[in-house]
Amino acid sequence: MDDLPSLPAKLARLRHAHPGDFNLSRIDPAAQPCSRGGKAADKVRVEELAVELDGLQNRFWADRRHRLLVVLQGSDTSGKDGTVRGVFGRMSPLGVHVVSWKAPLGPERERDFLWRIHAQMPGNGEITVFNRSHYEDVLVPVVEGDLRGKALQRRYRQINDFEQMLTETGTVIVKFMLHISREEQRVRLQERLDDPEKAWKFDPKDLEVREHWDDYQRAYRDAISATGTRWAPWHVVPADSKTHRNLMVATVLKATLQSLDLRFPPLPKGLAGVRVK
Amino acid sequence: MDDLPSLPAKLARLRHAHPGDFNLSRIDPAAQPCSRGGKAADKVRVEELAVELDGLQNRFWADRRHRLLVVLQGSDTSGKDGTVRGVFGRMSPLGVHVVSWKAPLGPERERDFLWRIHAQMPGNGEITVFNRSHYEDVLVPVVEGDLRGKALQRRYRQINDFEQMLTETGTVIVKFMLHISREEQRVRLQERLDDPEKAWKFDPKDLEVREHWDDYQRAYRDAISATGTRWAPWHVVPADSKTHRNLMVATVLKATLQSLDLRFPPLPKGLAGVRVK
Repeated sequence: MDDLPSLPAKLARLRHAHPGDFNLSRIDPAAQPCSRGGKAADKVRVEELAVELDGLQNRFWADRRHRLLVVLQGSDTSGKDGTVRGVFGRMSPLGVHVVSWKAPLGPERERDFLWRIHAQMPGNGEITVFNRSHYEDVLVPVVEGDLRGKALQRRYRQINDFEQMLTETGTVIVKFMLHISREEQRVRLQERLDDPEKAWKFDPKDLEVREHWDDYQRAYRDAISATGTRWAPWHVVPADSKTHRNLMVATVLKATLQSLDLRFPPLPKGLAGVRVK
Repeated sequence: MDDLPSLPAKLARLRHAHPGDFNLSRIDPAAQPCSRGGKAADKVRVEELAVELDGLQNRFWADRRHRLLVVLQGSDTSGKDGTVRGVFGRMSPLGVHVVSWKAPLGPERERDFLWRIHAQMPGNGEITVFNRSHYEDVLVPVVEGDLRGKALQRRYRQINDFEQMLTETGTVIVKFMLHISREEQRVRLQERLDDPEKAWKFDPKDLEVREHWDDYQRAYRDAISATGTRWAPWHVVPADSKTHRNLMVATVLKATLQSLDLRFPPLPKGLAGVRVK
C-alpha cells in the first residue's frame, strides 16, 4: 500500500503513509486537485468511476484473496453519507457493507475499544465501509480532555499495531479524512435546519460540537500524524466541493483496487468440457 | 401486508398470503405478467424502478419507524445475486445489508436454527436482504430425508410464529421465490462452465443438487404453502427472464414501501428559525 503506482502524483501531498508531523491546516478544504475542469465534467467522471468501481468490486468479490476496509472520518456534515452514496452506490450490495459507528454502549463499554471494531471486519472478497470508526476514540476523548500524553500515544500505537495485523493477514485498509472548512459546515448545518427533507439529519448536539471546531482540527491533525502508516495510509480529501470529494475518494479507491491484480478464479480442475444434462 | 393496494392485480395469483395449498407447478417460469411489451422497454423500466426504490429507501432510512426484511429464495442459478444487483444496486449501501446464508457451521449448529437468523435482523430504517435464508432449513433436510411429518410441520409453525413476532414488533417481511425451469437452469450452469468470467460461480455440488430437481420443487411447494402468511407473504417470481424477474421484484417492493406512508421526520422542537454561527 505504501507504493500505489497508479495514483495521480498531485494527490501525493494529500496522502500520509508514514508516522510523522502532518500539517492539516496547510490543506485547503476548497482545493480541487482531481478536477478536470468544471463541475459538470467532474460529475460525469464520478459517475463513470462509480461504474468502474462496480466492475472492480465484482472482480474483488470473485477473486476472494483480499478484504477491503475503507475508513471514512470527518466532522459533522463533511459528507460521509454522501460519499457512501456517490462512490459505493453503484456496487452490488452483495459484497459491500457499511457500518455506521456511534458512541459505544452497554457491552461495548465494558471491553477494549477495538473489540466491537474487530467484530465488523470484512470477510474474503468483501468491502466494508466504516462511517466513523475507531478513530473517534482518539478524537472525542482528546477534545473532552479525558485522553492525553502517554495514554494517547499508547492508543495510537494500539491502533497502528491492530491495523498492521489486519493488513498482514489479508485486509487492505484505506483511510479518508473528509476535510471541510468551518464556513462550509455552517452552510450545511443551516441547510439541515431550513430544508424539511434534511431536518431529520440535524442533531442539536452538532452545534455544541461545532463550538470545539479548532480542538477537533488539532485532534485530527495529531491522529493523522500518528496513524498514517505504509500499511494503512490516510488520505485527506478537500471536501468543500461534494463532487470533488467523491472524485478523489473514487480515484484513490480505483488505484487501490487496481494495485491488487484482481482476477476471476479458473474453473475447478476436471470440469473443462463438461456438459450439463 | 395482507392488503397491498397498489400491487397490480395481475400479480395476485403469484402472491401467497394465507397458509393453504399453493400449486407451484401451475406457475410458468417463463411467464412475464409484469412486462409492458418488449425486453428493451422492460429494462428501462427496471432501471427507473431501481432509482425510485433508492428514493423510497432514503425516506425509509430517514423515517426510522420500520425495518424491512427481504427474503430471496430459489434454486442454484435462479438469479438471487442478479436480483440484489438489479433491484437493490441503486440504493445507498448505508441502509441496505445483504446476508448470504450458507450451511450452518460450528456454533450455529449447536443452537436452534433461528438463532443465527435472529442475530441478522435489520435495525430501524434498515433494509436487510437475505440471499437464501431460514427456508433452507425446510428444504435441504426435507430433500435429504432428515425432516418430515410432524417435525416438519412443527418447523413450519416455528417459522410462522417467529415471523409473526418480527412483524408485530416493526419488521416488514417480504419473501420471494425465484422460479426458473429445469431447462433454464441447465443453460445457466453450462454458461458458468463455458465462460471464464463466470467459472468462479460454478460449484460441482450444483450438479448433484440438480439431480434432485423434482424433490426440491416439491419441498418449495410445501414450504410456500405452509408459510405464506398475511404478515409475511410469499411472491413466486417467474424468473426465466432476468429482466422480468427484476421487474416483478422491484414492483412488489415499491408497492410494499409505498404502503408504509414514509415521511421525513420534522425538525426537533424549538429549532425552527435558528441561525448557525
